[in-house]
Formats: sequence, structure tokens, C-alpha cells
Amino acid sequence: MGFTFNSETTLEDIRKAQALFAEERDWDQFHSKRNLLLAMVGEVGEVAELFQWQDDTFPVLESDHERVSEELSDVLLYLVRLADKCRIDLSSAVFQKMAKNAEKYPVNTSKGRSDKYTRL
Amino acid sequence: MGFTFNSETTLEDIRKAQALFAEERDWDQFHSKRNLLLAMVGEVGEVAELFQWQDDTFPVLESDHERVSEELSDVLLYLVRLADKCRIDLSSAVFQKMAKNAEKYPVNTSKGRSDKYTRL
Amino acid sequence: MGFTFNSETTLEDIRKAQALFAEERDWDQFHSKRNLLLAMVGEVGEVAELFQWQDDTFPVLESDHERVSEELSDVLLYLVRLADKCRIDLSSAVFQKMAKNAEKYPVNTSKGRSDKYTRL
Amino acid sequence: MGFTFNSETTLEDIRKAQALFAEERDWDQFHSKRNLLLAMVGEVGEVAELFQWQDDTFPVLESDHERVSEELSDVLLYLVRLADKCRIDLSSAVFQKMAKNAEKYPVNTSKGRSDKYTRL
Repeated sequence: MGFTFNSETTLEDIRKAQALFAEERDWDQFHSKRNLLLAMVGEVGEVAELFQWQDDTFPVLESDHERVSEELSDVLLYLVRLADKCRIDLSSAVFQKMAKNAEKYPVNTSKGRSDKYTRL
Repeated sequence: MGFTFNSETTLEDIRKAQALFAEERDWDQFHSKRNLLLAMVGEVGEVAELFQWQDDTFPVLESDHERVSEELSDVLLYLVRLADKCRIDLSSAVFQKMAKNAEKYPVNTSKGRSDKYTRL
Repeated sequence: MGFTFNSETTLEDIRKAQALFAEERDWDQFHSKRNLLLAMVGEVGEVAELFQWQDDTFPVLESDHERVSEELSDVLLYLVRLADKCRIDLSSAVFQKMAKNAEKYPVNTSKGRSDKYTRL
Repeated sequence: MGFTFNSETTLEDIRKAQALFAEERDWDQFHSKRNLLLAMVGEVGEVAELFQWQDDTFPVLESDHERVSEELSDVLLYLVRLADKCRIDLSSAVFQKMAKNAEKYPVNTSKGRSDKYTRL
């Protein structure tokens, strides 16, 4: 595809690769925001199916490892494409959200406390 | 946080930032795979709420743009963290999945055809 | 199964049938609340897959009708079972929720107005 | 609303009540199938948020009981409405699905065996 992915893979690389993939196939016509969102919901459902009967302490089974990898990748691919179609710069958005989270949960008050979670 | 995000932001940067964020707060104890998965489902639900009454042709409202940015970022953050906890290298996984998709949908047979989609 | 379903089928009938189904198979051990919830998420994902590339104006294809029927039924079956495991009387709960909705959206102020939805 | 709900509440009662609720408010125009589906996804996300940091062995907290009741009811209300808009008789559909499940998982071969689940 003219892209190589490794630990240096950026969100922008994925966005460009997905945009090219769709363009080559003339698929932009099918990639409305709600189509992509529902496709992402479908992929999240497939992830859920892989974990639905598993104990929390369970490691991901070796035999499931590839399927989990694929389903999580599918979620990511639709997510990146949806953000692109919403004209959202996901790299910038995720940075801003992490900065907001850091303010919301300062280390000194939230350290080791689950009540931040359970009593939202 | 010691990280800067821009168009060069890699998945690995996000993974590291999330891991550090959790470590600083002693939150690893709460980040089981199924906890993270359910948290991701919750965030996908919030994205759905922003699109549920919108026409497909609707642009994302200017006033909704920030909320959509935040919710998509939340999905991404939990997704990256879940992959990390599953010991999945998401950069590598997403590359393999895209290569597989390219084989599954060759340009010459899939160009402009929606039946690939509707009649899966 | 000793149950017949028709327009008189109650939520309680479905709850009992599901409880008996699980008991006969000794499956209560697998029906934790989070297992059932993730199973429901998986089924919702399958519904989403059936609608992801369809235009809003699209009728459900005749050929898809049975699949949609099955997937919606699966969502219902896990939902009823999850409520049961949470010791929630779904018949009573749904009545209370509808009464609450009727208060929240009085006919005179909400009639024909989509802004109740889009600007929550 | 002219309906009373109790252990005799049928799916048909809920369907009628929801249809009347929408008709009185002139809301049919907003209740496309995909709008209702995304609304259901949003409600499932809210259920997930209530369970995301809870241990499996955790009972539903007394203080969460009402919220879980409400969110599960919301899922049910959108589900019934979506089925109605798809012209699916949910009472009949759920009966057929349960009969199919009984065939798929005969008592003698599936009793107490989780491998039916984990190795789908």
C-alpha cells in the first residue's frame, strides 16, 4: 500500500492509508458517518463476543490472540475513518483529552482510589 | 506528561502515555481487560448518542464538534489500553489487518460495488 | 418448552423460559451479570452489522427480515436474563420508566419538536 | 397512558404504549430504524458504564439498582420500537429463536459444558 507500519506508525499514517484504500475502491460513497459508526459498533460487538464467557483473570487464550488482534484493529480502522469523515484531527483530539483527564484526576487525589470509578 | 502529540503521534506514544497515566495513579488494579472493554462500550454509546437523531447528510454540528472529538478520543484511549493489556502490538496488528483487507477486497473486483457490503 | 408464545407473551413468560433453559443445561454458572451484558453487546453488534450499509429510507430487505428478527430476539433474551440476574422486575421497571418519560416529555411542549432530541 | 403494567405485561402492551407515546408527540418522523438502533446502542453504553468497574461477584449496589433498572428499561423500549418499525412481531420472533436455541443446544450434550460458549 506504500505504507509500512511499525512502532513509528502514526495515526496520520493510518488515516492516509484508509483514505487511499477507500478512494481506490470508490467507497467514499458508502462511508457516511453513521455507516462508519454502525460498522464500528459491529466490530466492538465482535470484541465483546471474544470476552463474554471469559473470567476477568483469564489471559487472552493463545488461540484467541489473533482474533482479538484483528477485531481491535477493525475497531481502530473504523474509528480513524470516522474521525476523518468528521474532520477531526484525532492526534490533536486525543492529546487534548489526555490533558483534560490529567486535570480531572490529579495524581495526589486519585492515586489508588477506585471510588473515582465506582461512584461516578 | 512528557509527551507531545502532533501529526507525528504514534500509537506507541499513546500506549506509553496511557500506561504512565495509570501507573502514576496506581490504577492498573482497575484496568482488567473486561473493565476496559466495558468502558470502551460505554464511550461508543456516547458517540452513538451524538449521532442518533442526525440525518446522514448532516455535517457534525459546530457545537457538537468538540464533544464528538472527545468521545472518539475516549474510545481510542480505552482501545489502546485494552490492546496493551492483551499484549497486542496494535501498530503491527492494524498493518496486518489492512494487508488482509487489501487481499479480501482487490481493487478490480470491489471498485464502486456496494454488494460487497450489503451481501456479506 | 412448556411455554407457548403469542401476542399474549409476557416478559415474565420469557424470563421463566430463559431461567428454565439455563437450569436444564446447568448454565447458571456462566450467567454472571457481566457475561450476560457482554453477550448482549455482541448481539447489538450483530444488529448493527445488518444496518451498517443501509440507507435510512431503506426497508429491511425481505432476505434480511429473518436475520434481523433473530438478532433482535437475541438482544431481548440476554436483556431479560440480565435483568433477572440483577433481581430487577423488568415489567415493573419499564412501566416506571415510561411514566417518567411521559413526565419528561409532556405532549403539549414536545409535540413535533426534534430539538428535544438534538439539543439534549 | 391507559396501560397498566404488571407481571401480565406483554410485549404487545409495550409496543402499543410506545407507538401511542410517539404518535401523541408526532415523533414518528424521528423514529427511523437507524435512529432507534443508535439510540439503543447509546442505552446499552449506559448499562456498560454502570458495570465497567464492578467485579463479577459484585451484587448490583442498592444505590445503583434504580439506575440499572432505568437503563435496562430504556434498552427494552428502543428494542421494542425498533422491532415494530421493522414490522417484526417480537413475541413470535423470540419464541422461534428460543426453539432454535433449544435445538442448537440439546440438554444432554450441552449440560454444564462451557466449551459450547468459549469455543464457538
